[in-house]
Amino acid sequence: MKIKVLQNILDANDRIADKNRQLLDSQKVLAVNIMSSPGAGKTSLILQAIDKLKGRVRVGVIEGDIASSIDAERISKEGVAVVQINTGGSCHLDANMVSNALDSLPLGEIDLLFIENVGNLICPAEFKVGEHKRVVLLSLPEGDDKPYKYPQMFAVSEAIVVNKIDFLPVLDFDLANFHRAIKGLNPGVRIFQVSCKTGEGIEQWVSWLESELKGG
Amino acid sequence: MKIKVLQNILDANDRIADKNRQLLDSQKVLAVNIMSSPGAGKTSLILQAIDKLKGRVRVGVIEGDIASSIDAERISKEGVAVVQINTGGSCHLDANMVSNALDSLPLGEIDLLFIENVGNLICPAEFKVGEHKRVVLLSLPEGDDKPYKYPQMFAVSEAIVVNKIDFLPVLDFDLANFHRAIKGLNPGVRIFQVSCKTGEGIEQWVSWLESELKGG
Repeated sequence: MKIKVLQNILDANDRIADKNRQLLDSQKVLAVNIMSSPGAGKTSLILQAIDKLKGRVRVGVIEGDIASSIDAERISKEGVAVVQINTGGSCHLDANMVSNALDSLPLGEIDLLFIENVGNLICPAEFKVGEHKRVVLLSLPEGDDKPYKYPQMFAVSEAIVVNKIDFLPVLDFDLANFHRAIKGLNPGVRIFQVSCKTGEGIEQWVSWLESELKGG
Repeated sequence: MKIKVLQNILDANDRIADKNRQLLDSQKVLAVNIMSSPGAGKTSLILQAIDKLKGRVRVGVIEGDIASSIDAERISKEGVAVVQINTGGSCHLDANMVSNALDSLPLGEIDLLFIENVGNLICPAEFKVGEHKRVVLLSLPEGDDKPYKYPQMFAVSEAIVVNKIDFLPVLDFDLANFHRAIKGLNPGVRIFQVSCKTGEGIEQWVSWLESELKGG
């Protein structure tokens, strides 16, 4: 019984996600769902892309958090369209929340929409929100074993960003062990190694985003 | 309707948690539920306590993970009783999972039981498992804004451990901002600042655990 109920919830979510996707397609908006643990650097990664794409690509952002508007405030300083979703207690965004947020955004003036999910390496992987690409961000201090412990997130994503790569010299992070895990879960997935602090690798990440744009 | 169902689930969970607690009390076991984001250092913190308490306090561990037995293997090398729970998809331990794990542990030979929850700063705060103390662990690289974004976890815990404090000189972590948030959410809570890498602050954390033991 419990499984059936959950399935209904997921089916209902997926139907709304499909509608969100159709709306985004009709407006030629590329939507990228950014997922990670708390504090891995989702907002910093988005800010880096906003900076690099300034004048070329019009960016919009949906910020998802349990509480607070700290991240939306950081983003809005850059002069891009941003909507904050506070989920209350919910540990992930769902398609209905994103549908409401899309109603408040000027989609005709956006080429690239970042959807920053709630900081959580588990549940966001189960709920599509209408995005074109799912990206999981892992920060080096979290450790190289995370794909083994949280496999679904790494299996469903179209790209993996390893952030805080500048910590590599001072941490026991085994890149080979990490890549081995990813190869087993999601062979062929795009992997970017970046530092939002030093700027290392950001160019490759932003180039990939640009190459995926819907054009207009 | 949705809220009612959730309430029922939580009520049922709390009833089992009460039974777990009674069982632990009858065996004079202190149970400590350790919660944090993925990669904050829960297992390392437990290993530090095992090392410091060796020969004085008999430790047992319940390891909670979505998948894998990486942490249980690290713990079992220390020769303490350990049980691994794999939750499948579930993003938190619940009282029933812990009840089953308690059945497999030699409680008469354990003074201090660590229950390492699934790496998640949200849902574990909602599900009691029968523990005496809830401890949230935050690692410095996650940032000082986490209590604002994930307030419940910091509000319900009896102690807060700030780990990876050795990163303080190289990170923009504002300790005053962090303490201000905690004061608003949970005034009077115990706060420990530690580094599992350098050993800083571990003695205070372990002394607190010892002072809470049920005796026997």
